Amino acid sequence: MYRSNTCGELRLSDKDKIVTLAGWVQTVRKFGSITFVDLRDRYGITQLLFSESHNADLDANPLGREFVLQVKGKVNERSNKNNNIPTGEIEIVVSEFKILNKSAVPPFTIQDDTDGGDDIRMKYRYLDLRRNAVKKNLELRYQVNRAARNYLHENNFMDIETPFLIKSTPEGARDFVVPSRMNPGQFYALPQSPQTFKQLLMVSGYDRYYQIVKCFRDEDLRADRQPEFTQIDCEMAFVEQEDILNMFEGLVKRIFKDVKDINYTETVERMTWEEAMWQYGNDKPDIRFGIKLCNLKFPAHTFPAKENISSLIAGDFAVFNDAETVIAISVPGCSEYSRKQTDELTEWVKRPQIGMKGLAFIKCNADGTFKSSVDKFYSEDKLKAIAEAASAKAGDLVLILAGAEERTRKASSELRMYMADKLGMRKPDDFKLLWVLDFPLFEYDEEGNRWVARHHPFTSPKPDHIEVMINNNPVIADAAKYLEHPYANIKANAYDMVLNGNEIGGGSIRIHQRELQEKMFAALGMDAEEQQHKFGFLLGAFEYGAPPHGGIAFGFDRLCSIMGGSESIRDFIAFPKNNSGRDVMLDAPASIDEKQFEELQIKLNLK
Amino acid sequence: MYRSNTCGELRLSDKDKIVTLAGWVQTVRKFGSITFVDLRDRYGITQLLFSESHNADLDANPLGREFVLQVKGKVNERSNKNNNIPTGEIEIVVSEFKILNKSAVPPFTIQDDTDGGDDIRMKYRYLDLRRNAVKKNLELRYQVNRAARNYLHENNFMDIETPFLIKSTPEGARDFVVPSRMNPGQFYALPQSPQTFKQLLMVSGYDRYYQIVKCFRDEDLRADRQPEFTQIDCEMAFVEQEDILNMFEGLVKRIFKDVKDINYTETVERMTWEEAMWQYGNDKPDIRFGIKLCNLKFPAHTFPAKENISSLIAGDFAVFNDAETVIAISVPGCSEYSRKQTDELTEWVKRPQIGMKGLAFIKCNADGTFKSSVDKFYSEDKLKAIAEAASAKAGDLVLILAGAEERTRKASSELRMYMADKLGMRKPDDFKLLWVLDFPLFEYDEEGNRWVARHHPFTSPKPDHIEVMINNNPVIADAAKYLEHPYANIKANAYDMVLNGNEIGGGSIRIHQRELQEKMFAALGMDAEEQQHKFGFLLGAFEYGAPPHGGIAFGFDRLCSIMGGSESIRDFIAFPKNNSGRDVMLDAPASIDEKQFEELQIKLNLK
Repeated sequence: MYRSNTCGELRLSDKDKIVTLAGWVQTVRKFGSITFVDLRDRYGITQLLFSESHNADLDANPLGREFVLQVKGKVNERSNKNNNIPTGEIEIVVSEFKILNKSAVPPFTIQDDTDGGDDIRMKYRYLDLRRNAVKKNLELRYQVNRAARNYLHENNFMDIETPFLIKSTPEGARDFVVPSRMNPGQFYALPQSPQTFKQLLMVSGYDRYYQIVKCFRDEDLRADRQPEFTQIDCEMAFVEQEDILNMFEGLVKRIFKDVKDINYTETVERMTWEEAMWQYGNDKPDIRFGIKLCNLKFPAHTFPAKENISSLIAGDFAVFNDAETVIAISVPGCSEYSRKQTDELTEWVKRPQIGMKGLAFIKCNADGTFKSSVDKFYSEDKLKAIAEAASAKAGDLVLILAGAEERTRKASSELRMYMADKLGMRKPDDFKLLWVLDFPLFEYDEEGNRWVARHHPFTSPKPDHIEVMINNNPVIADAAKYLEHPYANIKANAYDMVLNGNEIGGGSIRIHQRELQEKMFAALGMDAEEQQHKFGFLLGAFEYGAPPHGGIAFGFDRLCSIMGGSESIRDFIAFPKNNSGRDVMLDAPASIDEKQFEELQIKLNLK
Repeated sequence: MYRSNTCGELRLSDKDKIVTLAGWVQTVRKFGSITFVDLRDRYGITQLLFSESHNADLDANPLGREFVLQVKGKVNERSNKNNNIPTGEIEIVVSEFKILNKSAVPPFTIQDDTDGGDDIRMKYRYLDLRRNAVKKNLELRYQVNRAARNYLHENNFMDIETPFLIKSTPEGARDFVVPSRMNPGQFYALPQSPQTFKQLLMVSGYDRYYQIVKCFRDEDLRADRQPEFTQIDCEMAFVEQEDILNMFEGLVKRIFKDVKDINYTETVERMTWEEAMWQYGNDKPDIRFGIKLCNLKFPAHTFPAKENISSLIAGDFAVFNDAETVIAISVPGCSEYSRKQTDELTEWVKRPQIGMKGLAFIKCNADGTFKSSVDKFYSEDKLKAIAEAASAKAGDLVLILAGAEERTRKASSELRMYMADKLGMRKPDDFKLLWVLDFPLFEYDEEGNRWVARHHPFTSPKPDHIEVMINNNPVIADAAKYLEHPYANIKANAYDMVLNGNEIGGGSIRIHQRELQEKMFAALGMDAEEQQHKFGFLLGAFEYGAPPHGGIAFGFDRLCSIMGGSESIRDFIAFPKNNSGRDVMLDAPASIDEKQFEELQIKLNLK
């Protein structure tokens, strides 16, 4: 061993011990004839003191930043203590030292506030990983991993490895494929998730399975997606939805406890997908704050229902009259916004990403009066009634958007988040969990005039919707009236776990009957032959005593990033890829040898 | 929840409780008007008693093998107790039952002694996994996983995930490659191991890393290889070989304790590669028994050295005189082998797989006399001396092979194992660990007349061999004299852990200096450009303060199979592939869609 102790370990109680440390030179400071060096390793920083007697040696072998150094010396009480670090009361008076390896000058500083840009830090990721900020993220990731494994182990889950070289059955996302040399002309696929395998394990009787496992999706990458990502993947047999919700809110609470020392004792809130969409404008609402949406046109989409709501905006204002949807939100304490501020908000909602035509507002003044951008159309009484419907109090600012339903709802959600950010209502260290339930089983695909699975094709309808599914033809006769098709109203036994406005996990009770699974595949446009080719093994398995089962998968990268208070999953992955799917450190992907093409019996066919 | 208890849980102390169980029908037995059903789940089997009152129901809904059943009933003391199972004192008197799912008749019986052949069991792997024998294997695998993680966690190792989509740098084995759609014409490779990444993590300061991780090698599969396999992959910084040996024999001992309840307190034996090769004839000797090889021609290859050994066989026997190598082993207690038995052994060594021309023997009779197949060439005194050199005692049978060095050594090793198997000296529940040390750094590649890395190109020479490596030209001027090249004698700081004659882990101290790494790459025939293209990131990393480091990787599948007393790793993998690399359950690999070819911009080029 090159060391007797780590650089984070020694305290005043170790005074006078002779120790050996090894680590990296963080800083070198000459102080008269004495040299101070901060030596860094994974565990901390310890100050070294080189007395005058080493000066000749140090002149001959000058120490630079990031040199790897081994020193022997005595633990000494510091005269000038540093209370900011755990080793700050001591220093090592060096008797011997050895440079284990030199370092070139790093291309950026290895500090919390580095001077390195994104690109250079990714190229030299092995240096970026030395920075405390990145190290803390990976440590947190390991803690989450450990906490999850412990909880699942204690609850009788078994980690069972599923294969990585499987069969391509593209549904939704694209597969990465792997040419097989031993089976020329054929390809493996990398799993988008172990979905069918964990279901087979349930059929096999391993009633509690988990895995922390890499998954692969060949998608065009958005800012915060990775072609390979990690899931905490879980499945249980002989359970109903309620059992799964309880088990896995327990998991997340345990992670909070073990990793953040947070006792998340409160009940995890639940809402239906309908509620989420109409109260918050999206299916993963951030419920750390209110500012709920009030739908001023459709009483059926207000929670609790407000029967006569559409009468409130009845009048001469054509914009509201003509709009498919009118949505109000009440922003607390902003009634005194200036003209400049409301103009800025109007510009903000008119940006192409938001796409609204304008913004109406009602200021609920502290004195009980109301002032509005639309007060020529509405009496103060009307304004007051609208504001009250939006749950506004004196001092609040009501913002109103009008337009096509989906866009307006989405814009209202964005505006809600934007205002909450402005008002500091989204603190990264404030955590709020939510279950969103009762998702639609199907989504309508306009292009193909057909149904696609909202979650995935293995999700079960709610028990009392099974008959609807079995007994109706999935074909949509009249595209314009797809909403009237019985399938449009089938809800799934599916659930998402949402943390601070991010989906961190999602799952469902699965279909476990062959007949229903075949109906589902057929509803998605798969004929019997295709079903057999792609999922024959699963349909077969359902013939031999498949138990009722369900599960969930957590996005491990995302979960870690939110726990760590960051928006970016990349900061929590040791060796991430960039937005083009490249590893710039390795310079991968790359060309391969002619011999590899020959052996695989493939060739390029570049456009 | 579909159950209040599992099928392995209830005891006599639960008598009279009303419980709900769910599981699979193992057997149905009519007994007069009463029906007994054994209900099975992951946790055990519980007997159900259906009284006469259920007969109409059971006639209408007959229960079959592997039906999924839910029952409610009262825990009752059995009149006819079964002491072979933990639940054998009770039964459930069924009040209500529900068939949760039916089952077709399985294609083989779900029992320890199944009637299913390999192929059918692989096709219906989800049914095979129900068998107790397979379940026990996967449970053991999880226990090994858990024990390893706990030990490594307690020793400050961090699980850090490394990427699966990396760069193809084929060294030795072939890479599986993955075409990149976003980077047309370029390919990722799947990792053969996380080797370079774990070394980068050491450079980054994460001084104790581990991962239980899938690795991929596109090799022609031998009986017990899989294209995807799992490693317990570990690396440490600031350590010497001794530190690694101690840490990881600790790991295996911990696994023995946690999984098998074996206190492996004895010191793990160590021997050099030279000793292993000459005392046991191979580099992963089974040391549960002796029967060491005695080299009768080369004193330098006897341990301890026997100076005048070659004089023992000097004489008129041309076979021994002409042979490059003559090796004797002493088999305990077999001096009374009949002519038929020794003839059979002779036939055995003449099989093509062994490839020897014949077998000589000396019977060391109990009365102190010696009888030999070569006694016309050697006096009884000579025979006695040879037998003593081979450590034979009265009652033993000395077997002697002669021929070309490598083949004879290998044949002696095979014969040693064959005799030990015959004599029951290789018990699967007797475990013996061994470190094999000081492997050669290079192997000679006859075809290319060049050096290849025995372990891998990142392995460090022993400290006092570094100079030899740096200061000599790797080019082999005279192929016939390759053994005289200084590189032939360079030993590596590499070590294998051997368990019962199987290599379960291997590792090395790594090179951490750019200059030495470049020399190593050059020795393997890589020019500077190729080095930069393939491993530029690693050479770069070594410039910025790389610490001394080393590690090990355990073959997780193999480790589990030996712990489980089996020769086959496939039995310990949930969804294994066959010898053609196929998953016969999925029917993968398979063809892919035209659209996938188009998007990936590749096409087939079948021979």
